[in-house]
Amino acid sequence: MNRFGHYFRIALWGESHGPRIGIVIDGVPAGIALAAEDFAADLARRRSGPTGTTPRREPDVPQLVAGIYRGRTTGAPIAIEFANTDTRPQDYAATEGHDRPSHADRTAYRKFGGYNDPRGGGHLSGRLTAGLAAAGVVAKKVLPAEIAFETRLVEIGGCTEPDRFDDLLRDAAARNDSVGGIVECRVEGIPAGWGEPFFDSAESVIAHLLFSIPGIKGVEFGSGFAGAHLHGSENNDPIVDADGHTATNHAGGIDGGITNGSELVVRAAFKPTASIGRTQITFNRATGRMEPLATTGRHDVCIALRGAVVVEAAIAIALADLREP
Amino acid sequence: MNRFGHYFRIALWGESHGPRIGIVIDGVPAGIALAAEDFAADLARRRSGPTGTTPRREPDVPQLVAGIYRGRTTGAPIAIEFANTDTRPQDYAATEGHDRPSHADRTAYRKFGGYNDPRGGGHLSGRLTAGLAAAGVVAKKVLPAEIAFETRLVEIGGCTEPDRFDDLLRDAAARNDSVGGIVECRVEGIPAGWGEPFFDSAESVIAHLLFSIPGIKGVEFGSGFAGAHLHGSENNDPIVDADGHTATNHAGGIDGGITNGSELVVRAAFKPTASIGRTQITFNRATGRMEPLATTGRHDVCIALRGAVVVEAAIAIALADLREP
Amino acid sequence: MNRFGHYFRIALWGESHGPRIGIVIDGVPAGIALAAEDFAADLARRRSGPTGTTPRREPDVPQLVAGIYRGRTTGAPIAIEFANTDTRPQDYAATEGHDRPSHADRTAYRKFGGYNDPRGGGHLSGRLTAGLAAAGVVAKKVLPAEIAFETRLVEIGGCTEPDRFDDLLRDAAARNDSVGGIVECRVEGIPAGWGEPFFDSAESVIAHLLFSIPGIKGVEFGSGFAGAHLHGSENNDPIVDADGHTATNHAGGIDGGITNGSELVVRAAFKPTASIGRTQITFNRATGRMEPLATTGRHDVCIALRGAVVVEAAIAIALADLREP
Amino acid sequence: MNRFGHYFRIALWGESHGPRIGIVIDGVPAGIALAAEDFAADLARRRSGPTGTTPRREPDVPQLVAGIYRGRTTGAPIAIEFANTDTRPQDYAATEGHDRPSHADRTAYRKFGGYNDPRGGGHLSGRLTAGLAAAGVVAKKVLPAEIAFETRLVEIGGCTEPDRFDDLLRDAAARNDSVGGIVECRVEGIPAGWGEPFFDSAESVIAHLLFSIPGIKGVEFGSGFAGAHLHGSENNDPIVDADGHTATNHAGGIDGGITNGSELVVRAAFKPTASIGRTQITFNRATGRMEPLATTGRHDVCIALRGAVVVEAAIAIALADLREP
Repeated sequence: MNRFGHYFRIALWGESHGPRIGIVIDGVPAGIALAAEDFAADLARRRSGPTGTTPRREPDVPQLVAGIYRGRTTGAPIAIEFANTDTRPQDYAATEGHDRPSHADRTAYRKFGGYNDPRGGGHLSGRLTAGLAAAGVVAKKVLPAEIAFETRLVEIGGCTEPDRFDDLLRDAAARNDSVGGIVECRVEGIPAGWGEPFFDSAESVIAHLLFSIPGIKGVEFGSGFAGAHLHGSENNDPIVDADGHTATNHAGGIDGGITNGSELVVRAAFKPTASIGRTQITFNRATGRMEPLATTGRHDVCIALRGAVVVEAAIAIALADLREP
Repeated sequence: MNRFGHYFRIALWGESHGPRIGIVIDGVPAGIALAAEDFAADLARRRSGPTGTTPRREPDVPQLVAGIYRGRTTGAPIAIEFANTDTRPQDYAATEGHDRPSHADRTAYRKFGGYNDPRGGGHLSGRLTAGLAAAGVVAKKVLPAEIAFETRLVEIGGCTEPDRFDDLLRDAAARNDSVGGIVECRVEGIPAGWGEPFFDSAESVIAHLLFSIPGIKGVEFGSGFAGAHLHGSENNDPIVDADGHTATNHAGGIDGGITNGSELVVRAAFKPTASIGRTQITFNRATGRMEPLATTGRHDVCIALRGAVVVEAAIAIALADLREP
Repeated sequence: MNRFGHYFRIALWGESHGPRIGIVIDGVPAGIALAAEDFAADLARRRSGPTGTTPRREPDVPQLVAGIYRGRTTGAPIAIEFANTDTRPQDYAATEGHDRPSHADRTAYRKFGGYNDPRGGGHLSGRLTAGLAAAGVVAKKVLPAEIAFETRLVEIGGCTEPDRFDDLLRDAAARNDSVGGIVECRVEGIPAGWGEPFFDSAESVIAHLLFSIPGIKGVEFGSGFAGAHLHGSENNDPIVDADGHTATNHAGGIDGGITNGSELVVRAAFKPTASIGRTQITFNRATGRMEPLATTGRHDVCIALRGAVVVEAAIAIALADLREP
Repeated sequence: MNRFGHYFRIALWGESHGPRIGIVIDGVPAGIALAAEDFAADLARRRSGPTGTTPRREPDVPQLVAGIYRGRTTGAPIAIEFANTDTRPQDYAATEGHDRPSHADRTAYRKFGGYNDPRGGGHLSGRLTAGLAAAGVVAKKVLPAEIAFETRLVEIGGCTEPDRFDDLLRDAAARNDSVGGIVECRVEGIPAGWGEPFFDSAESVIAHLLFSIPGIKGVEFGSGFAGAHLHGSENNDPIVDADGHTATNHAGGIDGGITNGSELVVRAAFKPTASIGRTQITFNRATGRMEPLATTGRHDVCIALRGAVVVEAAIAIALADLREP
């Protein structure tokens, strides 16, 4: 099930340390202008470099290998690929069998009977989200022009003050540790009427895709978990005009699974990166003993940093699939 | 998209005030013993009666109209129906056009161009979840026998002390108000290896179905949103043996989208019931003016009460779809 | 997999001798006028009565139990059911285990480990096609008004002269035998551009549904098998104007999997009814011996007779699923 | 809808004259040995060279770019690509707008509003079937080892004598014409019980995929169209033992949509290649006039020649999707 979507359809493939990864996007209308440059801004947001991101450097130049002709989409499937250039599979050789706690190493091993590619997580790697980011760019082109995304990292390690984030990240890095974070995405301009009562509610489709992003363990809309503390008289959003505008937006833009025309508000909780340099005592399949593990390989201190644009991409893809023609 | 599932497949239909509602379940192996009595316990948990639930009384006797022969599943689609007996559509006649804030009234009206059945929410009614509860019973029969569910209402209106819940409910009811709540479901016995890296992670499939339950606005697994406050060294679950058991369970039973053999821990946040008797000033489509609305009809003070078994059913259905044969 | 369709979606359930059968139709736009009377004409074409059809009499009055409000579709799933009134399950008791040759009796028994409902074929019965005929009626309402169907039985038992059909049927009936036939459906008014290159070509989607109708063993479009005898210079259809009209129509309205605006021409071959009164020597599972079997129960001499409207319905459903919005 | 399959899932992309084409295969169990050499035999059967095939020469060396690790499938999606090396897009420049009769040129132009890649048919090219042939190789590895395929070209231009085929092909080529043909595939060793009553009958799934192969206009199983001429007493296959073996095989291995354990027998009718060098008078979109067209580009005289292995691949893929685990 490497595929998602009924109308805007994607299929994702590749491994962290294989020759390249790719995404195939189907259901894109013909005639949309699309060039490699269109991907630059979003891919730059996902690229490593800033404090707290991995030292692995991938240029992430998308290759548009199918579905584009004379600079426009043809209506045929669009295939986009990214070469893996800065791979260091040897980083993983020493620890093969010594599964990283809270990582897919062990579950992938179990699921695939040991045949999975373990190098850098193989297919279960954040590397694959480059494809999602690219599909997000295409999705945004498919969506009505008035739809605008604003995505922010609103919390790192429980701290909600962005000017203190860098200190927290440096501190965690200094201790060879990692830290979690929360990303909030707000989307203006979504028409009312998108989403199905059962089972493709707008929340269902968005959450489905978000929960496939490595590291996300919680998703909420509007007042979300906090809304469960309230009374109806506090949480309800009174309607104020014939267009359905509301005085408040506790619903986060969705009522009954269907967009209501207000701003979409989604928050996604990223757990701290599972791969940490700090020593952990954990079971070693290779030796059959509990042993100290200090993860090698190159990892983000906080995956929410580079994950923000992936959250936005996932929401764009979900909206492109939900949109009413 | 009234359908869900790739292997354990459901299709849901019906309206709150139509003659009956139903669910069709496909993908159930032949030869499973199944009788109307098997549904009694779970349907009783969903039935109204206790403090804070609607005065509408539906006996909810499931009719097994297809797919069962001589007391066992045949391998053909199973059709289960529930008669709607205690309908009072006249409750909704007076307020037609005066959309309830934070309710599907308005979004359904917009989506379906005013052709939707507005009586009691029509197809967008909590009534439909009787079908989900029934499908959950079938799903549990399909799952390995060692899988056991424990579902609790862990929070009402921000209060986490169950012995104070009744007071809160009575208090909200006395003020013609409603209140939100959080349901936690724990599932023991799920084998390691269920779920796909992309895009049918165990979290994705479970959250997809949960977010189609009316009123759910947040879903988290394991440490969830709280985990985003932690460091990796705090949130990671060290592995302690060859079977992959872990010292802690911050992951809630899922690593990399794949079940890890530990207990599944899911929490769902229900918003307070949107329909409240308390007067709200909100726009009336029929008159074109802001006007006071006191919702008639019969409603739960806290949908999380009767929603708990529906959460459990949704998780069972999702697991039945995720299971590896 | 009792479901079909991406946009116009159906789910079929029921058994020949259960209380009722039904079909759930999703993806139908809101606001379409739909009443029980709309089904009368097509269901009459499927009803038994004429020479060569079964003596089982089912009134086939469709019950519209969901998805209709004030005489119009609501956008919610439409549920249509048919009561089974004239059942005689005792007809099948004597021969249980003595599988009818070329019938689903044996394959269903194998597939479902003996748990299938064997009465009248259970779920694998032509009875289920009442649901398809009903869905076909809804599909035609969804299609553009200019689309017109003409469906004829063009061949019975190798004979292509309709005025000799009754003699052939009476002759076969007199010998307790059955006979095969070929149905041709022509559809005018389909816009150019429906169907996908891979893998939902117009032929693929139509053939998929046709080959699920009990008894169909061959499907061809346009010149079909006869076209394989020709040269390109004979089989090609020269284009004659800017609208793409063609001088001939060997393609049967589809080029490259995409409708070309010409008349759709489909032919479906029905095998002779497998259930015949005439004695056949065949293996009896119950006794473990080869034994003579004279099928009891009530059957059509030629299923193509009542199958014609089902072919038309299947094509209408497929077109409703293929249509570009 | 460039994807097919529920369990063995494929997604196809690329254009005849783009840099490369590819197929992504998902749902393949982990641990299957798979190397580039495994594809050689089937790809050789699809390669041009023999009498009647195109002079375009593609080495068709498959690149296994994902889903394989240490020579075995990993359980992750398998991505296979083929470089397009011998392209001559200039062949198509002169005739752009002068649509080839009975070709996808015109329907693709209509469907995609003129944005389609027209070079060599773009995405709607027989070139794409290299991906299908490759997926067929993988499908055969997934199927039980006892399943064996035998595929033959049984008819060219109405002639059923294979030793006369070369003459027919040479004759057609000499006249710059093309010719149709019929391919028959027989598959031994399929267990009884594969396929669903509705709507994924074995015939439905196989025919769905076959009708997506460019040029196929008819599909039949067992006695097929000829069976429609017969009586039930002639066409029925008496069962002869407890395993369900039958004295005859008019059913072609499928009863009631479910495999019965007998040999699967499928025939597919290929129309004559639409692209012929012989002059045809047909409408020119570019000039708005009827004009003579002599197709340039390089084409097969009879697509059934190279299509035989593609038919076999499609059936293997369909069986891999139908198989019961």
